Amino acid sequence: MDLYGVIMAGGRGTRFWPLSREKKPKHLLAVTGERTILQQTVDRLLPLAPEKNLFIITAESHAAEVRLQLPSIPQENIIIEPVGRNTAPCIGLAALHVKRRDPKGIMIVLPSDHLIADAEAFRSTLAAAAEAARRAPCLAALGIAPTAPETGYGYIEEGKKVSEALGHPIHRVLSFREKPDRAKALAFLESGAFFWNSGVFVWSAETILEAIAEHLPLLAHGLKEIDAAMETNDEPAVVREVYERLTPISIDYGVMEKTKDAILLKGSFGWSDIGSWDALCDMIRETDKCAFPGKQGIAIDARECYVRADRRIVALVGVEDLIVVDSEDALLICRRGRSQDVKKVVEELEKRKLAEYL
Amino acid sequence: MDLYGVIMAGGRGTRFWPLSREKKPKHLLAVTGERTILQQTVDRLLPLAPEKNLFIITAESHAAEVRLQLPSIPQENIIIEPVGRNTAPCIGLAALHVKRRDPKGIMIVLPSDHLIADAEAFRSTLAAAAEAARRAPCLAALGIAPTAPETGYGYIEEGKKVSEALGHPIHRVLSFREKPDRAKALAFLESGAFFWNSGVFVWSAETILEAIAEHLPLLAHGLKEIDAAMETNDEPAVVREVYERLTPISIDYGVMEKTKDAILLKGSFGWSDIGSWDALCDMIRETDKCAFPGKQGIAIDARECYVRADRRIVALVGVEDLIVVDSEDALLICRRGRSQDVKKVVEELEKRKLAEYL
Repeated sequence: MDLYGVIMAGGRGTRFWPLSREKKPKHLLAVTGERTILQQTVDRLLPLAPEKNLFIITAESHAAEVRLQLPSIPQENIIIEPVGRNTAPCIGLAALHVKRRDPKGIMIVLPSDHLIADAEAFRSTLAAAAEAARRAPCLAALGIAPTAPETGYGYIEEGKKVSEALGHPIHRVLSFREKPDRAKALAFLESGAFFWNSGVFVWSAETILEAIAEHLPLLAHGLKEIDAAMETNDEPAVVREVYERLTPISIDYGVMEKTKDAILLKGSFGWSDIGSWDALCDMIRETDKCAFPGKQGIAIDARECYVRADRRIVALVGVEDLIVVDSEDALLICRRGRSQDVKKVVEELEKRKLAEYL
Repeated sequence: MDLYGVIMAGGRGTRFWPLSREKKPKHLLAVTGERTILQQTVDRLLPLAPEKNLFIITAESHAAEVRLQLPSIPQENIIIEPVGRNTAPCIGLAALHVKRRDPKGIMIVLPSDHLIADAEAFRSTLAAAAEAARRAPCLAALGIAPTAPETGYGYIEEGKKVSEALGHPIHRVLSFREKPDRAKALAFLESGAFFWNSGVFVWSAETILEAIAEHLPLLAHGLKEIDAAMETNDEPAVVREVYERLTPISIDYGVMEKTKDAILLKGSFGWSDIGSWDALCDMIRETDKCAFPGKQGIAIDARECYVRADRRIVALVGVEDLIVVDSEDALLICRRGRSQDVKKVVEELEKRKLAEYL
């Protein structure tokens, strides 16, 4: 009953334009500090699972960069998805690999592009979830105690407490909720019974494959074909053929919302999915000052600006509440609070066929 | 009585940072259109005076670029000042050169870094001033009908009309006024009797040298030394020696405010000294739209921004009233109306000894 880490590194990251590009999505960038977000995700797991037990699921176009960034992860643990089909196929494919290594193996499944301030608390919660998964078949979701009425996250509704593991309470899940509107998010926050869905899950490979068989039979059928071809010369072709015909579906929608086996482990370990420039600069900004995390900058009567520029010196005069991101060939200037519209810039670039900036 | 053009090209242009630099001040840049401001200044004069009659007074460090930009101006017409000493010495030195070509030569003296929308009207006024200077010794200043209570310009107070030349009324000058405060500038504007001092003057070389002899005897003495050494091997050394000991003084303060011979020719030919990014973007901006005079840009819900970027694509999201100037190694983001503070950026760079950005 070994512990395995499955890091889903398939994101595109248009919301971090111009830093993130098709060839270099968010998790492959060093957004905070020296290490990339993917590297930080691996570092964070290592005390729980050794490198040989970590799998990175990524796209062909990013595989070389992933290998470069993670030289100590075995080559065979870098798994290529031929096309993106959302998280259910990705997790199913990873479960096949884990099961081959250890039929009773426990998987921690997590996105590659989140930040977590308190790694120790995070690992403690993961260990408790793994312990629960060892005891009995269950599908554990990590829920984050909300600190704001966020409309950008899904929520998990807490049910009654059913047990404990390593000192962590374990709750049933009453429901998974899609991203709410503002009013509903406020009600969720005030009720105290709703938690942000972090996208981090813990289960045994066996249990999740059984749940997929029950709730997503077409995916289960495809996975069976892949399983039969694994470690043969046909494997890449079969994976591609299966993936081509799969419908994209998330594990939340495809399995978690339907299963009776979902459990909730709650935590608050400074989690952020850094889904936008605003989320990032909320995390690092000091009040009233301008932040220049890259090269040095000059602020003349400027306030509350976040400036990311590694190549150039940036001078601000008389401005406030700006997010400025400079890259080799493109520059973004965005009002704080408006960074969700950065994806419109990417759409506009696509419309104008300016592919070199994507 | 030939007509000569004397273009003073000694400016430093810190207010157009980061585009203007010590090595490339404003007049050597193509700020509007393809031609540099200096080239446009020459183009504007050519219908009045041929290239052989145009002198450019500049600094050693800019001479090579001036020659490159103005290949049809004779080498010997590019006059080097060893150090900047404001306009009076510059004009005196130029007058020596003009007088050698034609003892009765008429000089149009003008800064190299102004824009003029209606070149035809400008030349017509200059021709009238030259005609007045041919008739009798006088020192003609061009005054601009003010359109706003500008505190950044000197003003000329109109006296009574004394004559006409080529259809242009000629007035005595009652006074030259330094840059006024806001209240005084408003009073000037409302009175209708005050005109912006454009820094453009017309006179004979003989008359200005006589006026310098009367009002600036030390300068006159230095010019006599230079005159004696001209066209000898000693000329550069003598010019340097004289300049080193001269006190900086403007022709306005040193001569025009004191002389009884000042006359005023009024005009309104779309003149701007483009003294700041604000002045420039006021000239070219369309209301409510964002102007991207360089490379293409993307504006998502952005208004009233002026973006100058030749190397990079610039995306604006949810911002307004910004001046954005991108260069190879530096980026300026300035609130509109605040560009006078760009010089503080340059001061800060000096203070931090970041000479590579100056």
